[in-house]
Amino acid sequence: MSQPARNTIPAGISCAADYENHARNLLDPVAWSYLQGGSGNDLTLANNRRAFDAIPLWPRPLADVSGGHTRLQLFGQPLEHPLLLAPVAYQRLFHPDGECAGAMAAAAQGGTTLVSSLASQPLEQIAAAAQQTGGVAPWFQLYWQGERQRTLRLAQRAIATGYPLIVFTIDAPVKLASLTLPGAIRAVNLEAPLAAAPVAAGQSQVFDGWMAQAPTWDDFAWLRQQITVPLLLKGILHPHDAQRAADAGCDGLVISNHGGRVLDGAPAAIDCLPAIADRLGGQLPLLFDSGIRNGRDVFKALQLGACAVLIGRPAIWGLASAGALGVAHTIRLLRDELEATMAQCGCKTLSDIPASR
Amino acid sequence: MSQPARNTIPAGISCAADYENHARNLLDPVAWSYLQGGSGNDLTLANNRRAFDAIPLWPRPLADVSGGHTRLQLFGQPLEHPLLLAPVAYQRLFHPDGECAGAMAAAAQGGTTLVSSLASQPLEQIAAAAQQTGGVAPWFQLYWQGERQRTLRLAQRAIATGYPLIVFTIDAPVKLASLTLPGAIRAVNLEAPLAAAPVAAGQSQVFDGWMAQAPTWDDFAWLRQQITVPLLLKGILHPHDAQRAADAGCDGLVISNHGGRVLDGAPAAIDCLPAIADRLGGQLPLLFDSGIRNGRDVFKALQLGACAVLIGRPAIWGLASAGALGVAHTIRLLRDELEATMAQCGCKTLSDIPASR
Amino acid sequence: MSQPARNTIPAGISCAADYENHARNLLDPVAWSYLQGGSGNDLTLANNRRAFDAIPLWPRPLADVSGGHTRLQLFGQPLEHPLLLAPVAYQRLFHPDGECAGAMAAAAQGGTTLVSSLASQPLEQIAAAAQQTGGVAPWFQLYWQGERQRTLRLAQRAIATGYPLIVFTIDAPVKLASLTLPGAIRAVNLEAPLAAAPVAAGQSQVFDGWMAQAPTWDDFAWLRQQITVPLLLKGILHPHDAQRAADAGCDGLVISNHGGRVLDGAPAAIDCLPAIADRLGGQLPLLFDSGIRNGRDVFKALQLGACAVLIGRPAIWGLASAGALGVAHTIRLLRDELEATMAQCGCKTLSDIPASR
Amino acid sequence: MSQPARNTIPAGISCAADYENHARNLLDPVAWSYLQGGSGNDLTLANNRRAFDAIPLWPRPLADVSGGHTRLQLFGQPLEHPLLLAPVAYQRLFHPDGECAGAMAAAAQGGTTLVSSLASQPLEQIAAAAQQTGGVAPWFQLYWQGERQRTLRLAQRAIATGYPLIVFTIDAPVKLASLTLPGAIRAVNLEAPLAAAPVAAGQSQVFDGWMAQAPTWDDFAWLRQQITVPLLLKGILHPHDAQRAADAGCDGLVISNHGGRVLDGAPAAIDCLPAIADRLGGQLPLLFDSGIRNGRDVFKALQLGACAVLIGRPAIWGLASAGALGVAHTIRLLRDELEATMAQCGCKTLSDIPASR
Repeated sequence: MSQPARNTIPAGISCAADYENHARNLLDPVAWSYLQGGSGNDLTLANNRRAFDAIPLWPRPLADVSGGHTRLQLFGQPLEHPLLLAPVAYQRLFHPDGECAGAMAAAAQGGTTLVSSLASQPLEQIAAAAQQTGGVAPWFQLYWQGERQRTLRLAQRAIATGYPLIVFTIDAPVKLASLTLPGAIRAVNLEAPLAAAPVAAGQSQVFDGWMAQAPTWDDFAWLRQQITVPLLLKGILHPHDAQRAADAGCDGLVISNHGGRVLDGAPAAIDCLPAIADRLGGQLPLLFDSGIRNGRDVFKALQLGACAVLIGRPAIWGLASAGALGVAHTIRLLRDELEATMAQCGCKTLSDIPASR
Repeated sequence: MSQPARNTIPAGISCAADYENHARNLLDPVAWSYLQGGSGNDLTLANNRRAFDAIPLWPRPLADVSGGHTRLQLFGQPLEHPLLLAPVAYQRLFHPDGECAGAMAAAAQGGTTLVSSLASQPLEQIAAAAQQTGGVAPWFQLYWQGERQRTLRLAQRAIATGYPLIVFTIDAPVKLASLTLPGAIRAVNLEAPLAAAPVAAGQSQVFDGWMAQAPTWDDFAWLRQQITVPLLLKGILHPHDAQRAADAGCDGLVISNHGGRVLDGAPAAIDCLPAIADRLGGQLPLLFDSGIRNGRDVFKALQLGACAVLIGRPAIWGLASAGALGVAHTIRLLRDELEATMAQCGCKTLSDIPASR
Repeated sequence: MSQPARNTIPAGISCAADYENHARNLLDPVAWSYLQGGSGNDLTLANNRRAFDAIPLWPRPLADVSGGHTRLQLFGQPLEHPLLLAPVAYQRLFHPDGECAGAMAAAAQGGTTLVSSLASQPLEQIAAAAQQTGGVAPWFQLYWQGERQRTLRLAQRAIATGYPLIVFTIDAPVKLASLTLPGAIRAVNLEAPLAAAPVAAGQSQVFDGWMAQAPTWDDFAWLRQQITVPLLLKGILHPHDAQRAADAGCDGLVISNHGGRVLDGAPAAIDCLPAIADRLGGQLPLLFDSGIRNGRDVFKALQLGACAVLIGRPAIWGLASAGALGVAHTIRLLRDELEATMAQCGCKTLSDIPASR
Repeated sequence: MSQPARNTIPAGISCAADYENHARNLLDPVAWSYLQGGSGNDLTLANNRRAFDAIPLWPRPLADVSGGHTRLQLFGQPLEHPLLLAPVAYQRLFHPDGECAGAMAAAAQGGTTLVSSLASQPLEQIAAAAQQTGGVAPWFQLYWQGERQRTLRLAQRAIATGYPLIVFTIDAPVKLASLTLPGAIRAVNLEAPLAAAPVAAGQSQVFDGWMAQAPTWDDFAWLRQQITVPLLLKGILHPHDAQRAADAGCDGLVISNHGGRVLDGAPAAIDCLPAIADRLGGQLPLLFDSGIRNGRDVFKALQLGACAVLIGRPAIWGLASAGALGVAHTIRLLRDELEATMAQCGCKTLSDIPASR
């Protein structure tokens, strides 16, 4: 990107959404549109927000919550709060410091980040950035690499680098449209670009191309056997799939519709959470992704069964506006709102948040 | 039409709806408004879309769908996909190649077209155009011609020309307003224009004029006896009528509200499909028409009980923008979206699409 | 009014609503706003329309309806159709021919009009205008005149003039705001203007002023005893009141919220009709008023239990645009739409319209 | 404020909402935005209105309501009507006469006002202003002062001044953003500004700062023991809290979401009223606050279980526009609308208003 890197927090920011306008003004329109857009007619993108806005929060005044906190243990990691950075691809599109900025910011704030398979910086460099600010290690988000061994090599490289946990994203097997990346930015950690299998005349680009390269439940079972660190699935919305994942030895789920970016018409992710929480009844930790814009939304997701949430676009607004400082500030603002919501709803700790499904 | 024929695919088209703006710019306002408009206050036109947008699609990742396809057999015809072109009237209003363009495009894409009784080109010429690209034969859409014998002569002419199937449209008995056609464009296959019976003073234009010329269940029973090829009814929305049609020997139904162009206030056609599918329980093939704008809508209609769908306005957008090529491209784009939806929803073939009613 | 009277039908009118723009352009803003406005925040005005738009119409093709008609008998009067003109006040505000124009038009179209207590022309003159075109006699709409004898004198004058039926409006006891009438226009048939009782200091303008002049159920019982012609109540929405009116000897009801002009927040009148029809089960003829804008709305009201409907604002749009001709044209357009709706819904006569509540 | 005080009623005011535009034009943008705004994304602010607009009012004509009235007894005080002025902070922001103007207006209209802990004028002066117009004494709204004794001193000073009743507001423990007050305006009755406890590095501003200063149920129990005048809680929405307050010796509740200004996402206050009224079954007087904009809303709140309501923003619109006269006029307009609604709904007194939950 040609514009000079922004590394100072702009004046007048009082909530995470205040960064949105700054990012819009700073980013080039192609990157902005890639970041903000959904798929199809943006039905799912809009429903993600409509669904959050429709969930009520019940004030419960006069509860004694002084000395409360937002700490949790997640897969053995101690976290100061349940706000994780979502595995957004190609973050150097948004700031020259790319994924490293988020990793530093998350660690400094006592949380962690999920590093995308499509990260624009080396896994080792990102892990080092996180360590630099003394936080817990980042997690690795895995895309299927067309076949088993190449996928496994990628996961093992992350594990060897110190990533303690793999989040396997399974909801984006078909790429109907894609961004043309500026020259210097690419998925530096992949052996080869993700692509459909070549198709013969009369064959289907979808079924014979992309889906021939897509993972199946059998592939997941195989991967589960190969990997000993915790393995999560990201992109589950249907309770049957949640149960199947649990039965197949999954260690946790990320309930997500990929921020409305994949199948337009998919239900609002937050509307899918309660049925999955009911079905699994605490068998697995459930993380939530898709639509979080403020700390009240975080509380709503926790109320409906999540133990932590992923922050996608809002973190990138902070990144584009002020680099690592902007991401850290965004996390802090969201956490402040979460704390204020907890306090007003009478919850001293995350485990006090009442299940409301 | 005076503007030169457009026969090349415009740049930047990534979905069928992208043709809409091209068509708007190319067509004269009267033709555009005739194409796009609904009846009355456009309540039904709007509800058709609102109803589709409200139907959720459930992603079912990790299913093995490689090598999947969209093939089906319909009334003995092998089709590559369930997308048929709807019987839009007077297609030379939209492109000089008229109905022939659609017939060629549909055949080339492995599907078929329904040719309107109000086609602006001879039935024989349209059938020949379809044959030229090696596809299956087009179907014939029949309007009642005011009395039995004239109606039968029209149907028999189509059958004799090789149309293998008659779709009898029954939902538009009254024409309260009509388009003034440019001189060269008319319903060339009719013996006489459709018109109301002349009414005496004090008589009703509706009851004594139009409805005196409209078909009844008795007429349908008679027609059923005369015609040995498959005979479908188009324009059924109420489950009682669906059952009655099945009992009267109908071979299939097209669930349709005529694209919101006839009775304003009629329910969204897609909202009527489940009750009819429940009532008939597989007795008859159900086709769906009214409101389809993308491949996700196609999947939704199949999920709710249809075996194939009719594409109306989107095909005409393609026709107006690029003639036969534009129609073929539109079909392909819709099919790609259908395939991607199937793949993301875990369906390898059309019969895997789960009934969700 | 200063503008010259319009007495010719404008070009391009294809439905009753097309007159609305003509009327807007022709009327002075004060008269227009008086005509169109509702009360308070226009919640009820908007709900009247929203409720109609949400009612589905079910097409029932292939029914034999040739030779159908819209005739009915109402309180002994033979009517060609169930469209009555609502008792709009001060019609000389909208056209110099005032109430006489509507009376002529309604009679010429085989229907009738309700003449307001606040008519701007003498009752005798309006009745004569109706007779001139050979129709049935108009009905008289009665407002309470502050006390019994004055009210009775007004009703008796109407009956003596040949008005065969009294419609007693009971839903507008309080006038919080009112129009300043241009000099020449006033309620010429009243002995004295409607006004609140004078209130002492510390008394309530509402309870001690207006309501001291408002009628009660006792007054209605008394009036019922004095009057031998059919006596209807207009302004009933609650089923308890409907039952009480029937028990008190009422001959018919007009379900109405006064076009959204009285109590803002009152339910949409059409939403109140089914419960009243259920409660009374055919004991009394139910007429419907409030929100009808086209013939499809008329069908909806008949389906939900009405035997006839009142046309308010649309008739005035026709009146303002073209005098008696405009009103007659409006009635004809609405009737044509009603007939087309009946035909498309498979109804040959009004009694074929299915109860759908 | 620099603009000259406005003390005359503007022309053309026919309902309380008509003052809104006047106030917008007269106030400086910061004060206006402070007055009008909600919190977060204004979800609760909007829902307060949407919920009121969705509640139907049932006209019940022909009831005998002449001589009706709106009088009530509330905590021993005789009131002419159930409209109390809400305890809006810093009223000198809106008019130089500040809280005194409202106190005079309320008393002159036979009602009363709630004086905020954050009043910009001395409690003694406000009480004297109310007495001047011969009305009942104003009530005192209490904010927790960080600790017990300071809170009690403030309450006792109010009681000693003649305030007969304490309304303890409990729903705003966290101040995330705040207004910078113009120099001359401040909370003159407080010993010290409300502030969070100082927090150490690593502590939470919310849990260790603000909430360490917030009251708890234990504090309420203690306060209840110290205070012998009636003690109400303001800011209850959940039925469990309502029951707990009743059990803890509370004398009345104000159902309120603080006008949508505190926890964005809290339910519309009016939607919470029925469950609380059901739960408490008349154990305690329930007052209602949040969203009232006209007399019809007042009737709706009474129908759902309130015995009186608080008027917030509309009273300030009147204050900003015309000082005490504007507030008095606003109260009168709302009362007139309440009376008209009662009359049209067949209610002669407040106790006739039917429970509709």
